Amino acid sequence: MGGTGYTGVELLRLLAGHPQARVEVITSRGEAGRPVADLFPNLRGHLDIAFSAPDSGRLADCDLVFFATPNGIAMTLVPELLAAGVRVIDLAADFRLRDAALWKRWYGMEHACPELLAEAVYGLPEVNRTAIAAARLVANPGCYPTAVQLGLLPLLQAGVVEPVGLVADCKSGVSGAGRKASVGTLLAEAGENFKAYAVPGHRHLPEIRQGLEAATAGAVGLTFVPHLTPMIRGIHATLYARLRDEGADPQALFEQHYRDEPFVDVLPAGAHPETRSVKGANHCRIAVHRPGDGDTLVVLSVIDNLVKGAAGQAVQNMNLMFGLDETSGLQAVALLP
Amino acid sequence: MGGTGYTGVELLRLLAGHPQARVEVITSRGEAGRPVADLFPNLRGHLDIAFSAPDSGRLADCDLVFFATPNGIAMTLVPELLAAGVRVIDLAADFRLRDAALWKRWYGMEHACPELLAEAVYGLPEVNRTAIAAARLVANPGCYPTAVQLGLLPLLQAGVVEPVGLVADCKSGVSGAGRKASVGTLLAEAGENFKAYAVPGHRHLPEIRQGLEAATAGAVGLTFVPHLTPMIRGIHATLYARLRDEGADPQALFEQHYRDEPFVDVLPAGAHPETRSVKGANHCRIAVHRPGDGDTLVVLSVIDNLVKGAAGQAVQNMNLMFGLDETSGLQAVALLP
Amino acid sequence: MGGTGYTGVELLRLLAGHPQARVEVITSRGEAGRPVADLFPNLRGHLDIAFSAPDSGRLADCDLVFFATPNGIAMTLVPELLAAGVRVIDLAADFRLRDAALWKRWYGMEHACPELLAEAVYGLPEVNRTAIAAARLVANPGCYPTAVQLGLLPLLQAGVVEPVGLVADCKSGVSGAGRKASVGTLLAEAGENFKAYAVPGHRHLPEIRQGLEAATAGAVGLTFVPHLTPMIRGIHATLYARLRDEGADPQALFEQHYRDEPFVDVLPAGAHPETRSVKGANHCRIAVHRPGDGDTLVVLSVIDNLVKGAAGQAVQNMNLMFGLDETSGLQAVALLP
Amino acid sequence: MGGTGYTGVELLRLLAGHPQARVEVITSRGEAGRPVADLFPNLRGHLDIAFSAPDSGRLADCDLVFFATPNGIAMTLVPELLAAGVRVIDLAADFRLRDAALWKRWYGMEHACPELLAEAVYGLPEVNRTAIAAARLVANPGCYPTAVQLGLLPLLQAGVVEPVGLVADCKSGVSGAGRKASVGTLLAEAGENFKAYAVPGHRHLPEIRQGLEAATAGAVGLTFVPHLTPMIRGIHATLYARLRDEGADPQALFEQHYRDEPFVDVLPAGAHPETRSVKGANHCRIAVHRPGDGDTLVVLSVIDNLVKGAAGQAVQNMNLMFGLDETSGLQAVALLP
Repeated sequence: MGGTGYTGVELLRLLAGHPQARVEVITSRGEAGRPVADLFPNLRGHLDIAFSAPDSGRLADCDLVFFATPNGIAMTLVPELLAAGVRVIDLAADFRLRDAALWKRWYGMEHACPELLAEAVYGLPEVNRTAIAAARLVANPGCYPTAVQLGLLPLLQAGVVEPVGLVADCKSGVSGAGRKASVGTLLAEAGENFKAYAVPGHRHLPEIRQGLEAATAGAVGLTFVPHLTPMIRGIHATLYARLRDEGADPQALFEQHYRDEPFVDVLPAGAHPETRSVKGANHCRIAVHRPGDGDTLVVLSVIDNLVKGAAGQAVQNMNLMFGLDETSGLQAVALLP
Repeated sequence: MGGTGYTGVELLRLLAGHPQARVEVITSRGEAGRPVADLFPNLRGHLDIAFSAPDSGRLADCDLVFFATPNGIAMTLVPELLAAGVRVIDLAADFRLRDAALWKRWYGMEHACPELLAEAVYGLPEVNRTAIAAARLVANPGCYPTAVQLGLLPLLQAGVVEPVGLVADCKSGVSGAGRKASVGTLLAEAGENFKAYAVPGHRHLPEIRQGLEAATAGAVGLTFVPHLTPMIRGIHATLYARLRDEGADPQALFEQHYRDEPFVDVLPAGAHPETRSVKGANHCRIAVHRPGDGDTLVVLSVIDNLVKGAAGQAVQNMNLMFGLDETSGLQAVALLP
Repeated sequence: MGGTGYTGVELLRLLAGHPQARVEVITSRGEAGRPVADLFPNLRGHLDIAFSAPDSGRLADCDLVFFATPNGIAMTLVPELLAAGVRVIDLAADFRLRDAALWKRWYGMEHACPELLAEAVYGLPEVNRTAIAAARLVANPGCYPTAVQLGLLPLLQAGVVEPVGLVADCKSGVSGAGRKASVGTLLAEAGENFKAYAVPGHRHLPEIRQGLEAATAGAVGLTFVPHLTPMIRGIHATLYARLRDEGADPQALFEQHYRDEPFVDVLPAGAHPETRSVKGANHCRIAVHRPGDGDTLVVLSVIDNLVKGAAGQAVQNMNLMFGLDETSGLQAVALLP
Repeated sequence: MGGTGYTGVELLRLLAGHPQARVEVITSRGEAGRPVADLFPNLRGHLDIAFSAPDSGRLADCDLVFFATPNGIAMTLVPELLAAGVRVIDLAADFRLRDAALWKRWYGMEHACPELLAEAVYGLPEVNRTAIAAARLVANPGCYPTAVQLGLLPLLQAGVVEPVGLVADCKSGVSGAGRKASVGTLLAEAGENFKAYAVPGHRHLPEIRQGLEAATAGAVGLTFVPHLTPMIRGIHATLYARLRDEGADPQALFEQHYRDEPFVDVLPAGAHPETRSVKGANHCRIAVHRPGDGDTLVVLSVIDNLVKGAAGQAVQNMNLMFGLDETSGLQAVALLP
């Protein structure tokens, strides 16, 4: 559902190369009837399908429906699909927050099916792998929340840092703003420029806090500042936490925590991950520093916002839900340079 | 041989995902002993091998050796490898020109093994597919020559344009300049900037002319102007030719000519190919225009200079040489956006 | 008139630093009442004025009105201003073509005041300096036409090249597309990408042809192909012409032709001008080559599309119209890097 | 002294347009004899001077010598110049730290004239205006230290934030790395990429700490993380501090503190400064936020690293030292877009 945005085309790119998936229907109200490869020429020769109107009844015949629609669409359509026995992964924010009142506060709409919020599984495999496998409805995490949670959870769960006074200073490429006409993300506006935005409050803040508080079983104090970076893909989260346990070995802690994870790569001590090292790939690469042996830990966490931050993580969740190899269709090497 | 440049790392990226290839040795004098994934973190988890010194005797045990070395290196080592029964694809320029005197004029060195120039097969599969399959030694084409020849050959072979007065106005991303310390390709110099270079003469000119003259069996008059573009990957060739045959149908000619080619995509009439539509992919996308129904044809031809313009074409040649499916390991969808 | 686009803000930047100009009114229907420096923070502290509604009667009190509006606006308002004794420089295309029928064909509208087309002076100072000084109405040239005409006129006027078979392969930064919400010029679409556009025909073609034919007093055959380049500012025109006079000395011809021009800089023989060498400046820098001593001349001509290609040239015209030093307010050094 | 780097060419750009300054000598060992405008074509027509060898005796005849040399050069030459009655502004780091032992620790060299460290005035006009006016030797601040100190000093001096637990998360364009051949800042490496660097410790940390401690008269705890951003110019400092005084009004505090400063612009409440709003200009633009009315203040501070972060601040200091209007030669509007 909704294949004309960047999340949609990235999902199509990954599914076109996935050995066990087949795209049956791809909807777009505005582009119905137009071949997908006409809008996205990178798909020429790879995906021979046209957009359909979204009311197509054929969705009910699919094993799985991905929603790559704006916020507020999926919640109106998911109940019917679940009732028809179709499983759902929502790449928008409709099912990410468990608290309907909190959702309304940040998204400015009444939630259309609050009764599903408890059932929806937050699709961060490194946290909820088992629940995802069994889920009917998966809420695919936001891009910033993926980078930040993967960088902070090991420390918070082990209790080696204070759960308050946390800072998440995050930088995103402009594809995170979506493929829609707007002045602010024109090349002539966002190129050769750097700025923070939404400092007073960003919708990913409650999502991150919910995830961190689940891990610590207590309140978490976090300042989250997103920035717009003059590049297309990539998120770099720079995370600051106050060390509580002087004797902790953060490097060993991270290596141990992510030892068996196929898509989280803990770099050697002293390293600085680059966003380009994950461009087009589903990996999160992480490094941890303790500058000047002081009391502040610095975690650097990078992902491709469209892959591990959106479509790739959705495919990872699909693999889990259908008992496939978790890395199926996700083994491409990042494009460097 | 030579894995620290952009052509080398791109070859490693493609070979790491190739189902029938295995990288046995990767040489670098300067980086011997260093894990490849340390220099190129996109390969972490994909290629667990370290650089070796180039004099390693293990090359003779390989089925194939790729040279991704600077010009002038391969010609000193190839004879010995061929004698040992190893087949070779040279991604540098050592075996591209058939005339040793011409080579010396443009490359400023005496050729070390002129006797091999007649045997070497110019590795443009769309022209020499059969000869490549049987070759011991393949000269992988230059990036500009690939984009220009694929755009002009159908017209010249069919005789519908004049073979003189041709113009090839070409634009390349900066990765074409290689991964070496230099002021001119710093982001602060080449970013937000556009310029022509080497207008008096560029080494790819004789290579292009050789290919076009082979097709026309006569002299060809071509002006070739390369430009540096503020992006990483991609070549866009804008080609101008004077129509000789008023009744010709260039669109049909191109479609017919490339009908069976897996990696040449002729766009619908009126289209403008974008370099990003082939980013990371082995395709060449082409469109042909006749502005104002005048006597000048305009051909637009785009490739990724590191893929179809270098490493991808080398893998395509390897597939042909070893009887593999020509598209094996080359089926990735271009990364867009 | 119309100060919210890139041409408008650039004009404000230049006028804010002009010692003999004062901005009295700046109109915008959509932003009326909003301080200019709120929309364009670079002007904070430099221009303390708010946008007014365009119907403000205060325009008639000005010495000069600039139109930085979309095509088709100026022609509806200019007659009244001229009648009120106000002089006008139109930065849009309304008065660039002398032939109302041709204008209608390319701009898709009936011209509102064809009777003014003969009076309007085409504002290329290097061609029409005297007429501009006396003009009531100046049609400020387009960006591509400025770069192309300055590069070709010396050759055509001297008769050293054929007036047919000319090629103008032009590359522009995305600010040329204007400051309006659109998908095609998003950073995520136009970044890391290169493409031609409007190959079948672009509105600047008849404007260029009109200028070249005035110089040659005969028909001119020109193929013009514009391209979108992943940078903000700058136009690079690569111009190809067939030499008619073997004995000509193009370098000397250019140096002689532009000897007294304050804003046309002929580079030494062998040079390649860079667009960044004119970033923010009103200069056009030009080099001429004759590759391989063949019969094709290559002229490289660069400007900043927003300065010499728009607002800077408008200020240059204003200086001429009001008897000021032609370089007044235009002496800034280009920003490099 | 030293005019071939980005700091040097920017200084030349500003001095070329300064009404009361004249460039007498510009040195470069490597480029002696070469016209400056040959290396930096933006200066063609603006600065008709060639590089001289650095041992030229003509420096002693100047009123002022700027050092735009690598660290460690100025300290060997300054004593002689001062003895000859020449005043000096060093744009490198030689005289920034008052403690010679600390300098040695971070810069890896013995200081050549530690006796001058006490005399040298740290050239941040917003702090040391009076001392700068009287100084023989000014240590021009580093780029990061300028952005960070201007953002934190008002809060620390007023005592409204804790002096410990401070975070300075800073992002710089690549021109900050200088104009020298290096792989890491190639467009193909640094473009479309974002990364932190020097997290274990960066030379600007002790400089920032020295400045903040002078303001608080006590120890300051600061974590400083610089990042490389894919753009040419600009620094964005995102600063985090814990509020000590619940009743403080940070917006009013900043507005009051910088009320009379010509080059520090406090934005309205809620604003997010963009680096492009100061591109080519000497301004620092600042905004302060208190997200969610919590106990963390976020200050956003932007400068052009080559202007207020280097050459522009040096000219500002020159103006102060010679009794000129502080803004002379520095009134250009930032280039936007």
